[in-house]
Amino acid sequence: IGSGLCVFSKHPIQEFTQHVYTLNGYPYMVHHGDWFCGKAVGLLVLHLSGLVLNVYVTHLHAEYNRQKDIYLTHRVAQAWELAQFIHHTSKKADVVLLCGDLNLHPKDLGCRLLKEWTGLHDAYLETRDFKGSEEGCTMVPENCYVNQRELEPFPFGIRIDYVLYKAVSGFYISCKTLRTTTGHDPHSGSPLSDHEALMATLCVRHSPPQHPPSPTHGPEGSQLISVLKEAWRELDLGVAQARWWATFASYVIGLGLLLLAFLCALAAGGGVREVAILLWTPSVGLLLGAGAVYLFHMQEAKGLSGARAELQHVLGRAREAQDSGPESRPALLLGQQEGDGTEE
Amino acid sequence: IGSGLCVFSKHPIQEFTQHVYTLNGYPYMVHHGDWFCGKAVGLLVLHLSGLVLNVYVTHLHAEYNRQKDIYLTHRVAQAWELAQFIHHTSKKADVVLLCGDLNLHPKDLGCRLLKEWTGLHDAYLETRDFKGSEEGCTMVPENCYVNQRELEPFPFGIRIDYVLYKAVSGFYISCKTLRTTTGHDPHSGSPLSDHEALMATLCVRHSPPQHPPSPTHGPEGSQLISVLKEAWRELDLGVAQARWWATFASYVIGLGLLLLAFLCALAAGGGVREVAILLWTPSVGLLLGAGAVYLFHMQEAKGLSGARAELQHVLGRAREAQDSGPESRPALLLGQQEGDGTEE
Repeated sequence: IGSGLCVFSKHPIQEFTQHVYTLNGYPYMVHHGDWFCGKAVGLLVLHLSGLVLNVYVTHLHAEYNRQKDIYLTHRVAQAWELAQFIHHTSKKADVVLLCGDLNLHPKDLGCRLLKEWTGLHDAYLETRDFKGSEEGCTMVPENCYVNQRELEPFPFGIRIDYVLYKAVSGFYISCKTLRTTTGHDPHSGSPLSDHEALMATLCVRHSPPQHPPSPTHGPEGSQLISVLKEAWRELDLGVAQARWWATFASYVIGLGLLLLAFLCALAAGGGVREVAILLWTPSVGLLLGAGAVYLFHMQEAKGLSGARAELQHVLGRAREAQDSGPESRPALLLGQQEGDGTEE
Repeated sequence: IGSGLCVFSKHPIQEFTQHVYTLNGYPYMVHHGDWFCGKAVGLLVLHLSGLVLNVYVTHLHAEYNRQKDIYLTHRVAQAWELAQFIHHTSKKADVVLLCGDLNLHPKDLGCRLLKEWTGLHDAYLETRDFKGSEEGCTMVPENCYVNQRELEPFPFGIRIDYVLYKAVSGFYISCKTLRTTTGHDPHSGSPLSDHEALMATLCVRHSPPQHPPSPTHGPEGSQLISVLKEAWRELDLGVAQARWWATFASYVIGLGLLLLAFLCALAAGGGVREVAILLWTPSVGLLLGAGAVYLFHMQEAKGLSGARAELQHVLGRAREAQDSGPESRPALLLGQQEGDGTEE
C-alpha cells in the first residue's frame, strides 16, 4: 500500500515533493486496489553541471479491461493533472524528464494529451539506438508474471512504460541509447517484475544534435486543440456518469429509509417479527453503502469538473492564439515560455 | 460542498490550476464538514504590464477548539503543502500573491512555516497605511455571525485571513494601503460574512520603495531551521497518533469478528436467538466502521509521513547550507533562486 514510486539518484537530490492525484479509481473496487495506494507524481530537482533537471516519476491507474475500461476517465484526468503539474512546476528547469508506468498505449488519449500539453518527447520514438523487446514493449508475453489472455490482441506485448524528456532555455536533449529487458532475468531466467525495465542514456548539449530527431513531434496548434477537445469530451462524459451514480445512490438511500421504516413497523406489529429483525442488518448496510457511494461519486464529479474547467480554459486560450495569428502561437502551445521572450 | 475558493479578476487569467490538500480532517467528523469540502489551493497566472503574477488563493482547515485542537497536525501539513506548492510553481513568477483564510494566527506554527519557507511578507505587518478593525483582525466580536464564546480570550478578535506577497527577480513590492471591514455592512448594518473582508493596494517597482519595510522579516537560516524542526516534531506526533488509531481500529476489527462468530453460535443454538439476531446489526456496523477507521488512519499516517520526509530533506539541506558558510545560505533559504545566479 503506497504510491509505489522510488528513485535512486547518483546526484544529490536538491528538492523533492509529491502530488497525489485527485482521482484514482473507486474504493469499492477493493480487488483492484488502486484507490488504496494513492497514486501520485513525485518531483525531484537535481543540479547537474550547472543544469537544473526536474525529474518526474509516476504510476497512473491500471487498465484492467481495455474493451470495457471503467477507469478511462480517471486515467485521462490523471494524465491531465500530471501534465499540469509538470507544466506549472518546471518553468525554471533546463531539462525535464518523466519516467513511469503510465498504463497508457502510445496512441491513447492520455498519452497524447500529456505529450501535447507538456511538449515532452518519447525516448523510444526519438532514439536511433534501441535494443530490447519488439517495438519497445514493456509488458511482453514472454514474461511469466504477465496475464497472457490480456495480451492476446497484442502479439509483441504493449508499450506502457515511458522515458519522456525535453530541454528548454537554449539546451538540446537527445536519447543516445535506449534498452529494455526482454521478459527474462539475464542470470536466473525468472524476471524481476511483470514489466520490463527501461534504461536510457540522454545527452544534453548547448548546440543541436548531429542527427536531429524527426520533426513529426513538434507541437502544432490544431493537434493540441483536437486532443484538448477529445479529453474535454471524455471528462464531460465522466462528470455525467459520476452524477448519474450519485443520483442513483440518492434514490437507493430513499428506498432504504422507506424499507427501514417498514421493517420497524413489522417488528413492532409482531407476527413476522423475526424476519423483520433479520432484514434490519442488510437494510442498514444498504443505507450506509448507498450513502458512501453518493458521497464518493459527488466528490468524483467535483474532481472531474475541476479538470474539465482547466481543460476548457486552456482550449479557449489555444483557440484565441490560433485566431490571433501564427506568430503568437508557439509561446502558448509549448506552454512553457509565458512571460519570457528570451527562450527558444 | 466545495473548496469555497473564488477569484474575480479584472485582468485576463492566463492559466489556472488547483491542488487539493492530501489531508483535510476526518470524514467521521461529519458536523465539521471540512473533509467533505476538499480544501485546496488555487493558482492563477496573470500577466500585468510585462510582469508574471502568480496569485494563490486558499482556505485551510478550520480550528474548532484552540485549547484542544485535533486538527493542528492537519493544518500544519496543509501549510507545508501550500508552501511547497507555491515554492515549486512560482519559480518563474515575478510577483507572488497569496490571499486566503489560513485559519492560523500570525504566530502559529503553520503561519511561520509558510512565511519562512516561501519568503512571503504579511501585508498587515508591512503597510504604513492601515484602516479597519483593531489589530487587523478578520474575525471580530462585533460581527453577529461570530460565536462570541470562541473569541472570549481575544477581546479584539483574531487575525486569520491574510494578504501575503513577495517580488522576485529584481522587482520590489510594497503594500500601499490595507483596509478591512469592521463587522458591519456599511449599508444595511448586517455583515456579508462571518469574516471581515481585506482589501490591499500593492505597488510593484523596479527600484526599492521610499519607505523600505522593517528588516525583521528577512529570512534567517537559524529561524528557518527552528521552524522546520518544530513542524517536523508536530508531524511526527501526528504520524504516531494516526498509527495508534489504526492499531486500535485493527483490535476492534478482531473483537468484532469474535463477537460475530459468538453471535452466530448463539443464534444457531436457540434460546437467546432473538437477542443474538438483534445484536447482529451493531456488530456488523462496528466491524465496517472499524475497517473504515483503520483504512483512513493508515492513509493519514502515509500522508503525514510524506510531508515529514519532505520537511526532513529541507531541514537537512538548510543545515548543510548553514554549515558550509554564509555565502551559500541565501540561495537555499529564499528557496526560489536555485540554478539561477542572475536573480536578487
